[in-house]
Amino acid sequence: MLTAVWQPHLYAKSMRIAREQIHDQNRRNEAGHREALNFLTGRLKKDGHDTERLLKSIADFQLAIPSWALGTGGTRFARFTGGGEPRSLEEKIMDVGLLHALNRSSGSISLHIPWDIPGNATEVMALAGELDLEFDAVNSNTFQDQANQDYSYKFGSLSHTEKSVRQKAIQHNIDVINYGKALGSKALTVWLADGSCFPGQSNFAKAFQRTLSSLNEIYSELPDDWKMFVEYKPYEPNFYSTVIQDWGTSFLLAGKLGAKAFTLVDLGHHLPNTNIEQIVATLMMEGKLGGFHFNDSKYGDDDLTVGSIKPYQLFLIFNELVYGMNNPASTNPPPAWMIDASHNVKDPLEDLLQSVEAIKLAYAQALLVDHEELEAARDNNDAVLAQEILQQAFRTDLRPLIAEARLIAGGALDPVSAFRSLNVRKHLIGERGFKTVSTGL
Amino acid sequence: MLTAVWQPHLYAKSMRIAREQIHDQNRRNEAGHREALNFLTGRLKKDGHDTERLLKSIADFQLAIPSWALGTGGTRFARFTGGGEPRSLEEKIMDVGLLHALNRSSGSISLHIPWDIPGNATEVMALAGELDLEFDAVNSNTFQDQANQDYSYKFGSLSHTEKSVRQKAIQHNIDVINYGKALGSKALTVWLADGSCFPGQSNFAKAFQRTLSSLNEIYSELPDDWKMFVEYKPYEPNFYSTVIQDWGTSFLLAGKLGAKAFTLVDLGHHLPNTNIEQIVATLMMEGKLGGFHFNDSKYGDDDLTVGSIKPYQLFLIFNELVYGMNNPASTNPPPAWMIDASHNVKDPLEDLLQSVEAIKLAYAQALLVDHEELEAARDNNDAVLAQEILQQAFRTDLRPLIAEARLIAGGALDPVSAFRSLNVRKHLIGERGFKTVSTGL
Amino acid sequence: MLTAVWQPHLYAKSMRIAREQIHDQNRRNEAGHREALNFLTGRLKKDGHDTERLLKSIADFQLAIPSWALGTGGTRFARFTGGGEPRSLEEKIMDVGLLHALNRSSGSISLHIPWDIPGNATEVMALAGELDLEFDAVNSNTFQDQANQDYSYKFGSLSHTEKSVRQKAIQHNIDVINYGKALGSKALTVWLADGSCFPGQSNFAKAFQRTLSSLNEIYSELPDDWKMFVEYKPYEPNFYSTVIQDWGTSFLLAGKLGAKAFTLVDLGHHLPNTNIEQIVATLMMEGKLGGFHFNDSKYGDDDLTVGSIKPYQLFLIFNELVYGMNNPASTNPPPAWMIDASHNVKDPLEDLLQSVEAIKLAYAQALLVDHEELEAARDNNDAVLAQEILQQAFRTDLRPLIAEARLIAGGALDPVSAFRSLNVRKHLIGERGFKTVSTGL
Amino acid sequence: MLTAVWQPHLYAKSMRIAREQIHDQNRRNEAGHREALNFLTGRLKKDGHDTERLLKSIADFQLAIPSWALGTGGTRFARFTGGGEPRSLEEKIMDVGLLHALNRSSGSISLHIPWDIPGNATEVMALAGELDLEFDAVNSNTFQDQANQDYSYKFGSLSHTEKSVRQKAIQHNIDVINYGKALGSKALTVWLADGSCFPGQSNFAKAFQRTLSSLNEIYSELPDDWKMFVEYKPYEPNFYSTVIQDWGTSFLLAGKLGAKAFTLVDLGHHLPNTNIEQIVATLMMEGKLGGFHFNDSKYGDDDLTVGSIKPYQLFLIFNELVYGMNNPASTNPPPAWMIDASHNVKDPLEDLLQSVEAIKLAYAQALLVDHEELEAARDNNDAVLAQEILQQAFRTDLRPLIAEARLIAGGALDPVSAFRSLNVRKHLIGERGFKTVSTGL
Repeated sequence: MLTAVWQPHLYAKSMRIAREQIHDQNRRNEAGHREALNFLTGRLKKDGHDTERLLKSIADFQLAIPSWALGTGGTRFARFTGGGEPRSLEEKIMDVGLLHALNRSSGSISLHIPWDIPGNATEVMALAGELDLEFDAVNSNTFQDQANQDYSYKFGSLSHTEKSVRQKAIQHNIDVINYGKALGSKALTVWLADGSCFPGQSNFAKAFQRTLSSLNEIYSELPDDWKMFVEYKPYEPNFYSTVIQDWGTSFLLAGKLGAKAFTLVDLGHHLPNTNIEQIVATLMMEGKLGGFHFNDSKYGDDDLTVGSIKPYQLFLIFNELVYGMNNPASTNPPPAWMIDASHNVKDPLEDLLQSVEAIKLAYAQALLVDHEELEAARDNNDAVLAQEILQQAFRTDLRPLIAEARLIAGGALDPVSAFRSLNVRKHLIGERGFKTVSTGL
Repeated sequence: MLTAVWQPHLYAKSMRIAREQIHDQNRRNEAGHREALNFLTGRLKKDGHDTERLLKSIADFQLAIPSWALGTGGTRFARFTGGGEPRSLEEKIMDVGLLHALNRSSGSISLHIPWDIPGNATEVMALAGELDLEFDAVNSNTFQDQANQDYSYKFGSLSHTEKSVRQKAIQHNIDVINYGKALGSKALTVWLADGSCFPGQSNFAKAFQRTLSSLNEIYSELPDDWKMFVEYKPYEPNFYSTVIQDWGTSFLLAGKLGAKAFTLVDLGHHLPNTNIEQIVATLMMEGKLGGFHFNDSKYGDDDLTVGSIKPYQLFLIFNELVYGMNNPASTNPPPAWMIDASHNVKDPLEDLLQSVEAIKLAYAQALLVDHEELEAARDNNDAVLAQEILQQAFRTDLRPLIAEARLIAGGALDPVSAFRSLNVRKHLIGERGFKTVSTGL
Repeated sequence: MLTAVWQPHLYAKSMRIAREQIHDQNRRNEAGHREALNFLTGRLKKDGHDTERLLKSIADFQLAIPSWALGTGGTRFARFTGGGEPRSLEEKIMDVGLLHALNRSSGSISLHIPWDIPGNATEVMALAGELDLEFDAVNSNTFQDQANQDYSYKFGSLSHTEKSVRQKAIQHNIDVINYGKALGSKALTVWLADGSCFPGQSNFAKAFQRTLSSLNEIYSELPDDWKMFVEYKPYEPNFYSTVIQDWGTSFLLAGKLGAKAFTLVDLGHHLPNTNIEQIVATLMMEGKLGGFHFNDSKYGDDDLTVGSIKPYQLFLIFNELVYGMNNPASTNPPPAWMIDASHNVKDPLEDLLQSVEAIKLAYAQALLVDHEELEAARDNNDAVLAQEILQQAFRTDLRPLIAEARLIAGGALDPVSAFRSLNVRKHLIGERGFKTVSTGL
Repeated sequence: MLTAVWQPHLYAKSMRIAREQIHDQNRRNEAGHREALNFLTGRLKKDGHDTERLLKSIADFQLAIPSWALGTGGTRFARFTGGGEPRSLEEKIMDVGLLHALNRSSGSISLHIPWDIPGNATEVMALAGELDLEFDAVNSNTFQDQANQDYSYKFGSLSHTEKSVRQKAIQHNIDVINYGKALGSKALTVWLADGSCFPGQSNFAKAFQRTLSSLNEIYSELPDDWKMFVEYKPYEPNFYSTVIQDWGTSFLLAGKLGAKAFTLVDLGHHLPNTNIEQIVATLMMEGKLGGFHFNDSKYGDDDLTVGSIKPYQLFLIFNELVYGMNNPASTNPPPAWMIDASHNVKDPLEDLLQSVEAIKLAYAQALLVDHEELEAARDNNDAVLAQEILQQAFRTDLRPLIAEARLIAGGALDPVSAFRSLNVRKHLIGERGFKTVSTGL
């Protein structure tokens, strides 16, 4: 049974998972886990790995959960409600708290304004603090109109032909910074849907210049210890052109904006067959990789569970990230990690647990790669050996290590299974009802 | 000024465009048109073309307008209302009437159930008849749940694992047939969104077999003079697999269903770089091309204005269609032509006028191809000459011929410009208001 | 040192790897292997798996090696020789013998005519027999002209507009059957490069009909216990259309040809993002999946090492294959397994060893999937659980099982490393020289 | 009959087309041409166009012909000879002379070293001068090894891990500059095939840095009035990564190199669905668009005849080019125009004539666009009108204008038809024989 903690001054009727509940769950699988862990650490040590350091790195790796991924998403065709979805910012924070209690790796939440405007920042921070959560990058939204909006974003926002619309979008981003400041966020993520649906509709160069000018105004309001992340995407919701269509365009903007501006990579925002890991390497080489939105996809920006389609590509990307992060010559700051997914057919919380697990697995596999050996193979143009080295890391079953890092931090050995055993969703439906819709969905 | 005809027993406050209004418009451009036409027909005759026959073929070519394309569409991110959109089936019919008055080529409407359930079939038919419209294929909808629906289509409909859901979807399709019978439709179009979002989620073969079985039950209710069109699509709204993922799967189903079942090709439902014209040729060769959904796209199922991205591909497809239709050995029935587009940034009616124009242009260009000459070049493996023959047709400016066919039929020389001069949208907004939403959008 | 066995009456100066040499290699890693195997089999047994049966299935799985993959390939831009490549059919057989000695899973060779015309079938069969090899499907070649060829395949072969060229291509295929009969082959693989490079160049329907007619003539010469495999491919070497562009076209042809005709799937022969596993499932459902060409790719028909780019997709495909093969209701005959890769930067033999390993790993992972559990999750539309089941199999490190199956059969624990320790390539260069070119490359 | 001019001191046995021969051809079609031209210019003038200026712009537009496009290309599968192909640099120049005589728009040749090393620069320049040809950018080749090459490019050239190979490739590029200086070239085009075929094979950042360092050495040898064009390409001949994979990477390099370095866009070097026109606009905005390689493609770098697959995209690209070139604020130098195609099934010279025609047509269409009107529509977010403006230009049949520009300059009204009537290929085969292979193919 779940422990429902009532703290009426902060939030009403919200559920939490108590440590003892997780311990109860873990006790059932602990013997098997212990055996597998021993075998694995034995192997790793024999191969010269420092398993304690591995465990620490894995435990330290935290992922931000976006507030909009806690409810069921939808397509342009339909949205099928899932039940028990959070109805308020506080409930979204509670949901991330549940995830973090289970996997101890979801220690921050990324808010989306205006969907998540914090009414009382102090109380919201207190709630988050109680759940051991921080506030990651804040996200602005200029891709849809709010009710009774005076100027429409139908034809763009920061790149709009009309100054009044741009001004509105600029002010919105500044507002978002201010909301973030109150919560302790340190970054603004700008995803711009601006673009065009038809050849001729837009003047590419002018749209770029207007965007740059708008971003400059926002940048000038950015606190000194903040970063601005500029996302790129080739298409959708515009179907002919997007103002920031690729990493090159984002990088160009970030360079013109200044030292606090960075490119953000969303795995789903690429044309078919793009070599994303090379983009990652290039951006880190230039010190301009600001952050990451994790998801997986087969066709377009499908926003599927991380690692559900191309786990090897995920590993290859992490191989570049780890290499870049450990490169003493690198000037790239530590990237911000966030999941960005949409859940049409899965329980959003289960989906997020699977995503976090897949990310941590890929990260751990990448930690296993012996870069000295790899560089030697590369210097030798030994493609066979280079592949063996990568596959050796990828094929090793590192799940016991991830589980152990979680266990040490107080999380569940098997988060999805604990989520189910504890009937979390059923409790949430009981609290919130079945036909709920998350703000913004 | 527009003539607003009030016929309270059929529909209230609806606008029509009178013939004289169109004639007034045409008078302004007629001299220029006449001159261009004379030059063109002179050229064509010199090249051995029967311009009267061309004009007749062009005039006879009619396109069905889907009821859902009359309002502004949207993406999963946002929907920006356009103003004056039809609020009822009757208003949708009126909108198609406006299109048909302008271009004389939009002589039918394709209904989507349950968005367009006709309350009183007799009155609806009377209204359509008055506007010189017929009812094209009826479309079922099992990709979204209606309010208070007992069984959900969240995990599929005709392919669902549970019999009760399948039964509901089957019955819905039978209902759609019955609605169509009352209106004089002769075909049912089945677009099935069924599929899966994740590897493992679905058993491909079982999903196919359940779909076949469901379609068989619907097929058995199909009147003898009806056709069933089975659409295919590789992805969206499912992002890992779709039960009917490609023409091969649709063709397999159509073959198993029987002589009244056909494959329907939607231009946007293909993977990148697909040679669609070859698929068209293959289906016609096998006598199984049932119909066409026209649109254009750059990335996925973008549903853009026909001919706005790849007009040459459109021409190549028509080249196959004309060849197949004129092939005396062909057993393929005349395909059903329909536009299937979504309008996010354009006025839906203007967009449809542009689409119809692009289709008729491509059709006329295809009529210009000398297939005897082309076959001779092919027999000779003369790729240079074959290209010259096609480009000669494509590069010829046939707009005067299209305009003339329209003029003879009582339509506007330049429909988009007439639409604007007559302030049609302004009148519609006046009648219907700005913040309207079409049923189903 | 390698044992060079001289058997001048069969083949000259060819190298073999003796069992003792492999045993020497294995002894070094055996302790570690034994420990890992014990852990793994313990785990698997605890989960209810029959490890003996798994081992047997893995050991029984044999892959055909194509004769053209034994030398260095090239692109249209360049070819960089690798050294020690086989100069004759006999040397190619010897190379496959080396692979088979190392991994005991490459027990057959697939010949390509006219590159590998066996001079003396009896001697060739004796050589193969001695190396424990069989002859897999024979492959015809009508995509390039041989020196002084009377009719050119420049504009096609079985689909050519001229009867004389078609006749030549038909006769060639019949010759290939006859070569195969002499060697004990039981299948003919037809990969047809026929198509067109430009719109207009080819009449799609006529090209299909001519192809069908040509294939019919070949089919009529096919022995009763043979199969004909019809390959499909969307593009290359033709860049506008290919006569057999997709599985639907191949399936249509196979159906018209008869019960001995099947579709062959080459992993690299698909448009971007194709769901290949669904195609596999559909073909098996219809009893028409004849065979498989394994490779991997990121962009087009890249012919890379199997499993080097998308190992999870490979596993998903095997999941369908294993399901289809174990389905008692299936009428599909056991598919023929072959690698089809091209090696531009790797040692061809090392590349093939890596490919075989990746295939066996994916096969073993698929064997691990509990299909009863999976079907239950599917019936329940539990996408989360279905994914857990598949990932549980994929993430398990089954390499010790593959190694053990190899060990039992007399092969090397680690074939690539044995290949290197034994200096195989160095010996081959010593025998054959550096600047050799395989026939056909 | 063709006039074969013998100038034994320069080149032997080469054919030329005399002006009178072209006049004879033109006389046959002149009446029809005159009539069509009058109609067209009448229309254009009525719409406010300065037809004289249009004619001049069209006539001035010159395209460089690459020396390697004069023979039949091939794929990795086969090469089918075409007959009468040029066997030497001199014969290649003669071939371009034939093209230029026919269309008066192919006034320069782009050489490829080492395929076209000029033995005697003075004589080569004299020959070119006589044919009214100049020497465009020179192209280096470090993607294949020459016979007996000491260091191999198998694993790269300017990015190679070994200094000796890089040094060789650097020196080769410097040699190419020197050959170009002697001929009056003003630019070096670097297309780098360097990359990797397998994950892990290459260190992305190090490969970039080595490439940059190598390019810097070459750049330092570049004369002050020269430009360096840095090409990009996502894949082929490497199938996992390419060092300069996209415009962003090329732009980054060009920026680091200096003011004489520019990005070169090859239409076939993009991932599926890329919005190339936006890339062009961005590069021109930044003053970094150096040159263009024209071709067309459906799948990858298919190198098909320009305009044979996506003529509307070609027009959209020219729309950006014309806008950028006429933008007084632009700092971009006039881009270098070159065709880069490969001819597998067409006569290379006929193919090139078709390509030049398609390019000039797209250019002329772009000149027709009223940019003031277009900007007004854009400022108004009138996507419908913007499309009408572009389509109005694209749908206008401008062939008479192109023909007239050619006629005035002394070229043929219909170059392909003149090429055939004059039996050029037959004469070339007579001179050179059938089984010739161009150097480098």
